[in-house]
Amino acid sequence: MTEHLHKSFEGGVLTLRLTRPEKKNALTRAMYDGLAQGLHVAATHDETRVVIIAGGADFTAGNDLADFAAVEADKPRPGAAFEFLEQIRAFPKPVVAAVRGVAVGIGTTMLLHCDAVVVAKQARLQMPFSRLALVPEGGSSLLLAQRVGTALANWWLMSGEAFSGEEAMRAGLALRAVEDTQVEAEAVAIAAQLAGLPPGALAETKRLLRAPMREALEAVMAEERVAFSQQLRSPEAQAVFAAFLARKK
Amino acid sequence: MTEHLHKSFEGGVLTLRLTRPEKKNALTRAMYDGLAQGLHVAATHDETRVVIIAGGADFTAGNDLADFAAVEADKPRPGAAFEFLEQIRAFPKPVVAAVRGVAVGIGTTMLLHCDAVVVAKQARLQMPFSRLALVPEGGSSLLLAQRVGTALANWWLMSGEAFSGEEAMRAGLALRAVEDTQVEAEAVAIAAQLAGLPPGALAETKRLLRAPMREALEAVMAEERVAFSQQLRSPEAQAVFAAFLARKK
Amino acid sequence: MTEHLHKSFEGGVLTLRLTRPEKKNALTRAMYDGLAQGLHVAATHDETRVVIIAGGADFTAGNDLADFAAVEADKPRPGAAFEFLEQIRAFPKPVVAAVRGVAVGIGTTMLLHCDAVVVAKQARLQMPFSRLALVPEGGSSLLLAQRVGTALANWWLMSGEAFSGEEAMRAGLALRAVEDTQVEAEAVAIAAQLAGLPPGALAETKRLLRAPMREALEAVMAEERVAFSQQLRSPEAQAVFAAFLARKK
Repeated sequence: MTEHLHKSFEGGVLTLRLTRPEKKNALTRAMYDGLAQGLHVAATHDETRVVIIAGGADFTAGNDLADFAAVEADKPRPGAAFEFLEQIRAFPKPVVAAVRGVAVGIGTTMLLHCDAVVVAKQARLQMPFSRLALVPEGGSSLLLAQRVGTALANWWLMSGEAFSGEEAMRAGLALRAVEDTQVEAEAVAIAAQLAGLPPGALAETKRLLRAPMREALEAVMAEERVAFSQQLRSPEAQAVFAAFLARKK
Repeated sequence: MTEHLHKSFEGGVLTLRLTRPEKKNALTRAMYDGLAQGLHVAATHDETRVVIIAGGADFTAGNDLADFAAVEADKPRPGAAFEFLEQIRAFPKPVVAAVRGVAVGIGTTMLLHCDAVVVAKQARLQMPFSRLALVPEGGSSLLLAQRVGTALANWWLMSGEAFSGEEAMRAGLALRAVEDTQVEAEAVAIAAQLAGLPPGALAETKRLLRAPMREALEAVMAEERVAFSQQLRSPEAQAVFAAFLARKK
Repeated sequence: MTEHLHKSFEGGVLTLRLTRPEKKNALTRAMYDGLAQGLHVAATHDETRVVIIAGGADFTAGNDLADFAAVEADKPRPGAAFEFLEQIRAFPKPVVAAVRGVAVGIGTTMLLHCDAVVVAKQARLQMPFSRLALVPEGGSSLLLAQRVGTALANWWLMSGEAFSGEEAMRAGLALRAVEDTQVEAEAVAIAAQLAGLPPGALAETKRLLRAPMREALEAVMAEERVAFSQQLRSPEAQAVFAAFLARKK
């Protein structure tokens, strides 16, 4: 059991649930590590057929901005987020996401690696990288356009504007948008449906669906990682963080 | 004239019509061969400007499951389906599909190679590969996401769930969804419209539209074919077929 | 100041406005050159944060058909249109398009290189290449499908059929469709929003979004250019142009 991450297992379905509600499930290093470790184990655990990633009233507010601001010029950014993204990118079994409340930054980009995304109609998704003087991560430079087309991908990543779960579903980012009270039940139903199918065929299906873009996605994620680290140390980003932290005092 | 396949030609439009209504147009080897041969001849027949692929009250129930079940471990799967898919993948002129009733398995994946797909709103499309312990074929691992985005492509291929013609149109798999009684007329109108355009320009247009993905598609179809044959012989697939055949007795 | 092209600059936003209303802003060589030159300068002008491309009551009727008809077999087609397309393809800052009235041929394909496209609901977009016995250009063979999916991309480029701004938005070609009287204000608001964001992060974001397809797009545009020039000189194209010019007399 990791702090702020609750794991449960039933009927072939592993649920990884973020449990830091007082911070809207903002992700700590321990939470990233717990998610990465949970996926790593599940990948080769035969009884695990499907993984659900869930939060509570909020999915996750994403990375703590104070963490970004604390990066020092001569130290590498902690790699926990990237390690988690690598695990979810390469995970060979179906992943279902259950999204309520806010899903910010990596809270939205991780959804692009999930196979079935259920959102609350009233959920609020946002990839505010440009507003923080940062750049897209998690493969979103490539994957978002493949979900929603280039017009919305350009707009959401360039403007950093938030959008609702309803819009996410209409655009094709999410598979289903339901009432907030139905999100968990819908995700569980989808997971159960997939857990009942032949696991070898499902793994091969997922592998084939990802194969055409696998190399391109790896290259994009490597390029994003370099750009993100450089941008994090840029004067325009440091100015944004300083202004943000000044406002909080 | 092939058994269960009717060919007609009028106004530059070749119609290949599946005619095995007692089996919902389930495809036999002879029907695959007839389709492949029809396309092969049409490709270089100058007077043929456009091809329509149509059925009757049903488009096609796809491959006969008994054929899958009959595959023996030491024999290659009959290549008729693959040969047909190769012909339609590389066909240089516009192809219009007229889809009524059911379109199962290859009945849906072949649509991804057609340039204009007209469906009945009430049609029932399905790619139930995973439920049969099989994997996507016909290039659908790549092409479906390019039509409908990755969220629905993942879902339809992983879950094997059926969807209506209306949904196929909204998702972007089909160009138009009309009343069942209007499908044929609409397909004929589209074919006539395309048949009236300069054929050299149309062939070049189709070539350019396919060029960016040609190599990736060939690689995907080769990889699918290997995976499909392996999966067909897997214990989980043989168990599904055995259960299916037992139910029929 | 170029003839038929008006440039203005305010609040970090450069507006390039086509001003040849008597010809529905049909593009002359001087207008292509002015657009290309305007982008070339703006690319490295630090104070320019965003570019708007706009027309008036019409966006542009595209290339003058008489220009196509005048191409002689032994002379290369004037490269002004291609030079403009190269500039807009590689332009590193956000580009917003404001589209009212007609947007024909390159008037639609140039939108695929813009980051945010605002259209009037009643606008009329069209890529009538096949009807003129020509082929797609401006990267539309690749880019259109990435915006709207392959079904509509195939149809619009093969049939040459016109569609409304409303349809362009629903399909994902445009970001927003508004009343004709609101197009300019909406484009200005979007440009102002982007102009207020950190410019380094925006440039990196745009670079990352384009990176996965950069090489493929360059290859497509080179292939389109060859095919376009060959098709322009084909007997079927010359027949179309001759018929068109005869009708005008």
